[in-house]
Amino acid sequence: MLREIVTMEGHLIDSDILRRAFARIVEEGGGFEVLEFRVGKTNDEPSFARLAVLAPEPETLDRIVEGLNYLGASSVVEDARFGSAESDGILPDEFYSTANFDTFVRIAGAWQPVQDQKMDCVIVLRDGTPRCVKQRRVRGGEQVTLRGPGIRVRPPERSRDKSVFGFMANEISAEANKSIVIAGIARTMRAMRAAGEQIVAVAGPAVVHSGGDEVLARLVRDGWVNVLLTGNAFAVHDLEKAILRTSLGVCQMSGRGVEGGSRNHLYAINAVNRAGGIRPAVESGLVASGVMFEVVRKPISFVLAGSIRDDGPLRDVITDTLEAQEAYAAALAGAGMCIMLATALHSIAVGNLLPARVQTVCVDMAESVPVKLSNRGSMQAIGLVTDVGFFLERLEAELGEG
Amino acid sequence: MLREIVTMEGHLIDSDILRRAFARIVEEGGGFEVLEFRVGKTNDEPSFARLAVLAPEPETLDRIVEGLNYLGASSVVEDARFGSAESDGILPDEFYSTANFDTFVRIAGAWQPVQDQKMDCVIVLRDGTPRCVKQRRVRGGEQVTLRGPGIRVRPPERSRDKSVFGFMANEISAEANKSIVIAGIARTMRAMRAAGEQIVAVAGPAVVHSGGDEVLARLVRDGWVNVLLTGNAFAVHDLEKAILRTSLGVCQMSGRGVEGGSRNHLYAINAVNRAGGIRPAVESGLVASGVMFEVVRKPISFVLAGSIRDDGPLRDVITDTLEAQEAYAAALAGAGMCIMLATALHSIAVGNLLPARVQTVCVDMAESVPVKLSNRGSMQAIGLVTDVGFFLERLEAELGEG
Amino acid sequence: MLREIVTMEGHLIDSDILRRAFARIVEEGGGFEVLEFRVGKTNDEPSFARLAVLAPEPETLDRIVEGLNYLGASSVVEDARFGSAESDGILPDEFYSTANFDTFVRIAGAWQPVQDQKMDCVIVLRDGTPRCVKQRRVRGGEQVTLRGPGIRVRPPERSRDKSVFGFMANEISAEANKSIVIAGIARTMRAMRAAGEQIVAVAGPAVVHSGGDEVLARLVRDGWVNVLLTGNAFAVHDLEKAILRTSLGVCQMSGRGVEGGSRNHLYAINAVNRAGGIRPAVESGLVASGVMFEVVRKPISFVLAGSIRDDGPLRDVITDTLEAQEAYAAALAGAGMCIMLATALHSIAVGNLLPARVQTVCVDMAESVPVKLSNRGSMQAIGLVTDVGFFLERLEAELGEG
Amino acid sequence: MLREIVTMEGHLIDSDILRRAFARIVEEGGGFEVLEFRVGKTNDEPSFARLAVLAPEPETLDRIVEGLNYLGASSVVEDARFGSAESDGILPDEFYSTANFDTFVRIAGAWQPVQDQKMDCVIVLRDGTPRCVKQRRVRGGEQVTLRGPGIRVRPPERSRDKSVFGFMANEISAEANKSIVIAGIARTMRAMRAAGEQIVAVAGPAVVHSGGDEVLARLVRDGWVNVLLTGNAFAVHDLEKAILRTSLGVCQMSGRGVEGGSRNHLYAINAVNRAGGIRPAVESGLVASGVMFEVVRKPISFVLAGSIRDDGPLRDVITDTLEAQEAYAAALAGAGMCIMLATALHSIAVGNLLPARVQTVCVDMAESVPVKLSNRGSMQAIGLVTDVGFFLERLEAELGEG
Repeated sequence: MLREIVTMEGHLIDSDILRRAFARIVEEGGGFEVLEFRVGKTNDEPSFARLAVLAPEPETLDRIVEGLNYLGASSVVEDARFGSAESDGILPDEFYSTANFDTFVRIAGAWQPVQDQKMDCVIVLRDGTPRCVKQRRVRGGEQVTLRGPGIRVRPPERSRDKSVFGFMANEISAEANKSIVIAGIARTMRAMRAAGEQIVAVAGPAVVHSGGDEVLARLVRDGWVNVLLTGNAFAVHDLEKAILRTSLGVCQMSGRGVEGGSRNHLYAINAVNRAGGIRPAVESGLVASGVMFEVVRKPISFVLAGSIRDDGPLRDVITDTLEAQEAYAAALAGAGMCIMLATALHSIAVGNLLPARVQTVCVDMAESVPVKLSNRGSMQAIGLVTDVGFFLERLEAELGEG
Repeated sequence: MLREIVTMEGHLIDSDILRRAFARIVEEGGGFEVLEFRVGKTNDEPSFARLAVLAPEPETLDRIVEGLNYLGASSVVEDARFGSAESDGILPDEFYSTANFDTFVRIAGAWQPVQDQKMDCVIVLRDGTPRCVKQRRVRGGEQVTLRGPGIRVRPPERSRDKSVFGFMANEISAEANKSIVIAGIARTMRAMRAAGEQIVAVAGPAVVHSGGDEVLARLVRDGWVNVLLTGNAFAVHDLEKAILRTSLGVCQMSGRGVEGGSRNHLYAINAVNRAGGIRPAVESGLVASGVMFEVVRKPISFVLAGSIRDDGPLRDVITDTLEAQEAYAAALAGAGMCIMLATALHSIAVGNLLPARVQTVCVDMAESVPVKLSNRGSMQAIGLVTDVGFFLERLEAELGEG
Repeated sequence: MLREIVTMEGHLIDSDILRRAFARIVEEGGGFEVLEFRVGKTNDEPSFARLAVLAPEPETLDRIVEGLNYLGASSVVEDARFGSAESDGILPDEFYSTANFDTFVRIAGAWQPVQDQKMDCVIVLRDGTPRCVKQRRVRGGEQVTLRGPGIRVRPPERSRDKSVFGFMANEISAEANKSIVIAGIARTMRAMRAAGEQIVAVAGPAVVHSGGDEVLARLVRDGWVNVLLTGNAFAVHDLEKAILRTSLGVCQMSGRGVEGGSRNHLYAINAVNRAGGIRPAVESGLVASGVMFEVVRKPISFVLAGSIRDDGPLRDVITDTLEAQEAYAAALAGAGMCIMLATALHSIAVGNLLPARVQTVCVDMAESVPVKLSNRGSMQAIGLVTDVGFFLERLEAELGEG
Repeated sequence: MLREIVTMEGHLIDSDILRRAFARIVEEGGGFEVLEFRVGKTNDEPSFARLAVLAPEPETLDRIVEGLNYLGASSVVEDARFGSAESDGILPDEFYSTANFDTFVRIAGAWQPVQDQKMDCVIVLRDGTPRCVKQRRVRGGEQVTLRGPGIRVRPPERSRDKSVFGFMANEISAEANKSIVIAGIARTMRAMRAAGEQIVAVAGPAVVHSGGDEVLARLVRDGWVNVLLTGNAFAVHDLEKAILRTSLGVCQMSGRGVEGGSRNHLYAINAVNRAGGIRPAVESGLVASGVMFEVVRKPISFVLAGSIRDDGPLRDVITDTLEAQEAYAAALAGAGMCIMLATALHSIAVGNLLPARVQTVCVDMAESVPVKLSNRGSMQAIGLVTDVGFFLERLEAELGEG
C-alpha cells in the first residue's frame, strides 16, 4: 500500500469536513489511519488532524489527495506551481479549478488569500495577487495556478454559528415550522443591516403571480434589500401591473391568463422602451408603483439578465449571458446574505457566483431547486419549500416586529 | 362498417362532452357522422346530438357505445337489465360500474335517479330504489344493474356556471393570480353558507407545519367549515400544540424536528387517550385551543381515518379502512363544496367518494396531487399549487372582507 | 344589453374552441345566444357557428369580441387596419399580438396567410406580405397590424387526428401506460420521417445524468433527429464524457459529483475550445463518441444557446440571448415534431417559438414543466412525466420494432 | 453556567454524530468544551469523546443532555428507571420514546440490548427482556423505561462502509449518475443474498403504470425479493393485467384511463375474491402471470395493507391499519435491505418500522418522498429520483451481469 501524510486544520467537525474526508478516501478505494487528532476545545479553537492516506496504486493516491485538498487538507508544504495560459481563454491542462471556500495560495513561502473567490474559476496571478478568474477571461500568457501543492481552502464553520444558517445549512424542509425559520432569517437580516452588509434578492416572476411583489416593493423601500438580481420577465410583470392597473392580461374572475393576454406584456415593454428604459419611465411618471419603481426611487442597484425565453426585451436587459454573469458577479461583491425567490435559473446562476460564506436562503415550491443547489456542494443554502408570496408576507411581519 | 345511432342531451359543449365523445370514437378505432345537432340557444337550454357511430367489428362498436354511455349517450331505449349477486360481495360479471355523474336507471319504462351517487360502485336495487353500493357491501341475491341499455348519466354543466369553479374546473395552476382565485373560492363559500349547503374541509398535517392550523381553527369557530375529514397525524399535531405549548418537539431556533422530538407526539396521544378521547380532553380543559378544540366546541362533525403510518393512535381514530371510508362517505352526504388541504391520501380518498356536482378545490405544494385527481376523471376540482398556510390566510382575509 | 354578432368556422368542437368561447363570454361578464350552429358531419367537414354576444357596457363587449378573435371568431368583415412603428422596436399602442395558431390578415378584400407564425409577435407588412415579427425587430415606419377587424386565426383540429397527439393534447400524465404513449410517439416519428418533416430534439443536461445520451447519439446517427437545440451544459457534459472516458468528475462508487469534479467540466471546455470548437474537435479525433460527435458526423444542424449559468462557454455557444432565440426560430422553420427532453428553460423557449400545428412532446420528471407549457395556451404538447433516460430507451426500442 | 459531563463512543465522525451533538448543544442555547477526544485510528476502531456541556439554566441542561442521549451520549452511569403503565395503552408521563438506532438499557448494572428495535415506541420489560413496544400494545402494569439515565443508543457507522449506502446515506439525487448508483445497489443485493439476509420490496401502483411490474415479477421469480409489502391498489393492477390481458381499462392508442375503465379494476377484484383470494386464484389458473403470481408460486411472504382509497378490496387485504402495521413489522423482522418503489404511503410506514441498520433505497419521481424520509431522521435511506420502471429495468440488467 502506498501512503501519504496529510494534515487538516479548522472546524473539522462543525463543517462536516472530517467525515467527508474519511468518506472520500474510502469511496475512491483507499484507506486511512488517524495519526493525530486534536479537537478544538471551545467554539473559538480550530481542530487539527494528521492522517496517513493509503492506496493501492499511485493514481488512486493522487486522486484521493487532490480530493482532500478541496476539503482543505494539505500534504507537502511547498509553493504553488503555475503555468502560462496558452492564449486568451485557453488554460494549461493542469490548471486548478476553484471551490467556493476561502482559498489561499503559497507564493514564495507566504500564504496569500485569493481575491474574488467563487467556484469553477481558475486562480490567476494579476499584479502579484492571486485572483479567481473565469476561464474565458484568462489572457494569453497569464500565470495560472496548477493543481498540486501550495493551495489551501478553508471551509466555513457551521454548527457553532448561532443562527438559523448555522443549523440548517443544506437542509431542505417542507415540514419545518416555517414561522421559526422565517423568524431566524429576519434576525439574520437585521444583523446584516446593522453590520452594513449587503442583502441581495434574486427574484423570479412567480413573486408577482403570488402577490409577493407588493411586499418585495415595501422591503426595497424600507431598506431591507440592497441589490436586486432578476431577469426580463419579472421586471415586465411588475411594470405591466404598474402601468395597466385594471387589466393584467388575466381574467378578473378566474385569475388565469387569457387568450391574447400577452398583449399587455408586450404593451408594457413597448411603453417602457419608448420612455427610454425603466429609470426614465419612473421619472416621467409612467411607472408610479411596484418593485422596479421602488428600486429606482430608493435607489438600489439592479441587474436584469436576459434569457432565451424573453419577450421584448426591456432596454435595461443585458442580453449577452456572459456580460450578464459578470454584472451579477459585480453586484454580488459585498453580499453578506442572499435571498433567492422562486427562480431556478437565476438562483443557480447566483449560487455559482457566491463564496460559501454568504448566508443563502432559497425559497421554492419544489424541493428540486434547493436539492440542486445543495448537490452542487454549495454547503450554504437553507432550502425553504413554500410559496414565495407566503414567505414574503411572513418575512415582512417578522421584520416589522423585530 | 357497422353502424349504431346514439343520442346525447345536456350541456354537451359546456361540459366538454361532445369533444370527448368524438375523441373516444376515433381513439377506439371508429368513426362517426353527426346526423343532427341542436345547440342550446341560451344558458338554460340543453343541447341535443344524434350521431351515427361506425366501427369495423362488433366488439369495437360495443366498446365505443359503452364508452359513450359513460359520457351520457344513449343508444336503444330499453329498460335496464339486472343480475343477481352470487353471494355477499361477489358480483355478476356483467355488472355496470358507476361514474361520479348523476345517473338514472330505466325501470319499467321510467327513469329513476340513482341514490348516493359515487364512482366505482355498482347500482343495486334496494327497496325498489337504485342505489350506489360499494362492491363489498352488495349482499348475495341482490339485483345488480348490468352494463348495457337503460342507464343514463348527466355530466355537470361547466362554463355557464358563473363561478370560479365553472371556469377553472380541472385546471391546475401555479401561475394564476392566486388572489383572484381565492376571492372566487370565498364567494362560493359565502353562497354555499347562504344556501345551507355543507362545506367540508379535508386536512393533512402540513396544515400545522405551515401555521395554517390557527386560521383553520378560526374558520371552524366562525362557521365556515361544517365537516372535518382528516387522520390521526393532523389531529395529534394539533392536540400536541394545544397541550405542550412551549415545546413542540421542534427546536425553537431552527424549527426542525429534533432527535427524541416525537416523544411529544406520543405524549399528546397518551394524555388525550388517558382523558378518554378528544371530546373528554376538551371538556376536562386538557385541550383548550386549536382546530380539534373548535371542532368539539362548535360542534361540527369530524372523522379521523386511520393509516398504516399512524403512531398511537388516538382513541377517536377509525382504524379499519373500510369503516373509515364509510364514515367519510356518510359525512360527505350533504356536501356542496369540498376544500382539500395538503393531503394526497385523504384528498384522493374523498375524490373517490364525491359526486361530480360538488365544487372542489385541491390545495397542494405539488402539481402531482391535483393532476392525479383530474386524471381520475373527477372533472370537478380546481387545483391550486401553493402553500396551504398561505392559502388559508388569504382565504380568511377574503371571507372577512365579503 | 349591447349585442354583437360573431361567426366561427372550423373544427369548433374537436379543437375545444366553442367551449372556450362560451366560457370566455361568461367569464368576462357577458352572455350569448346561439343563432345558428352546423356541426361538421364527418371528419373532413368544418363546423359553423353564429353567436349573438351580449354585454352590459361597450368596454366589456370589446374585450369579449377581442378575446373571441383569438379563438378564431370574426365579427364585421373588413380589411385589417395598420399603424406605423414609431421607431425601431417601438410599436403603435393598438398593435395586435399574435397567437400560435395559423393566422390570416384581410388586405384589400383578400385573406392573406401570415408567414413565420409564432406567438407574442406582431404582424408586419413586409414586401406586401404579412409576417410575424418579434417586437424588437420591427423597424421604424413599418406597417404593423392593429387589433380589431380583418384578422382571423384557425386553431388546429384535435380529436379527429388519429395519433396519440390528437387524443392527449394538453394532457399531463404520470399514470398513463407509458409504453402505449411512447409507441404512439414512435409511430408519429416514423410518419414524420416518411413525410420528410423535420424532427427537432430539445435536450437538457439531465439526458446525460440519466444515461440517455447514448440512446440520443444513436437516434441522431440513425436519422431520427434532424435538429438539436440545446445549451452549453448539455454539450459540455456530452463532450466531457467523450474526452475523459474514465473520469467524469463523479465518484465511480456512488455516482455523485465530487469536490473538484467540475475541473473535468472546465477541462473539456478548454480542450474543445483549444481545438477551435466542436466540429474541429470531432475532425481532429479529440471527440470520437457521444451526441455532439454524431451531430457533427451525420451532420444535422444544432444550436447551442447561452445561459447565465454557463461555465466556459464552448466557442459554439451563442451567448446573446436574442441571437440565440433567432437561431432557434430559424432552426425550427421546417419542424413537424418537437421532442423536449428534461429542460424547463429550453422547452419553454421553444414552446414560445412553435406554431400550434407542430406536434410536441415534453418529457420531464416533474409535472410543473408540462403544466407551465400547457397553461401558456400552447394547446399542443403531450406532457409525459418520467425519467428522460427511460423515455429514450423505450423510444429507441419502439422505433427499432416499427 | 451549569455544567455536566457526557461521554460518547462509537464512529462519532463517520456517523456524523459529533457534529450533530455540537449543533444540538448550541441550537438549544448551550455551550461545550471538549475535554478529551480520541479518534478511531482505523476502520475498525471506535472513537471516544468526553464533553463538558454548559447551560444557563437547569431546564436547558436537561433538554440538551436528553437530546445528546438520542445521539448515543451517556452522562451518569446508573441503572435505567421504570414506571408502571397505568392501564392498557396508557403510559407513565415520563416514558422514554425510542429512536431507530440499536439501543441498550442498563438493568442491575448490565447493559441489555433492546429487542425489536424501531422508532417511536416505548421500551417495556417483558420476561425480563427490554423490548420495543408500540404505545397501544403496552399492557396495564407493565414496566416502561423512563427517560433519564441507563439508556444508550448506538448510531450506525456510515462512511467506512464500502458500499453505496455508506457514501450516499441521506442523499437525494436526481443528478447523480444513476447507472453507478444502481450498480452499487445491485452489489449490495448480491451481498445480502449471499449473507442470507432478507431483501424487502415495498411497491406502489406506479410500478405497474411504468411497466416495471414485469421486471419485478422476474426479480421475485429469480429470488431477488424475499418479502413484498404493498397495498390493494398495486395487487389489483397486477391481477387485472394477468386476468384481462387485452383490455386494461386504458385506451390502447393513448394509454390513458378511459371513462368506465375502472370496471376492469372492479372485475379483477370480483374474480379473485370469487376464487377465494390470491393464492386460490393462482392455483385455479385464473391468474397465471404477474408479480402476485410469482409471489405465490415462489412462494415469498407478502402483506397487503388496506387504505381508505381502496376499491374492493381483495380478500387478502388487512383492512385494519394497526393489524396491517403489525403484519408489516413482523414481515420486516429479518430484513437486511429494503427497496421502496414509488409509494409515499407505504414507504413512510415502512421507514417508521425499520431499524437504522437496514440499508434502504427509496425510488420516487419527486424529491419530496425521500426528503420526508430523511427529515424523519431515518439516516438510512438513499433517495433516487427517477421513474420506477427505469430503475427496475436497470437494476435487473445489473443483477444479471454480476
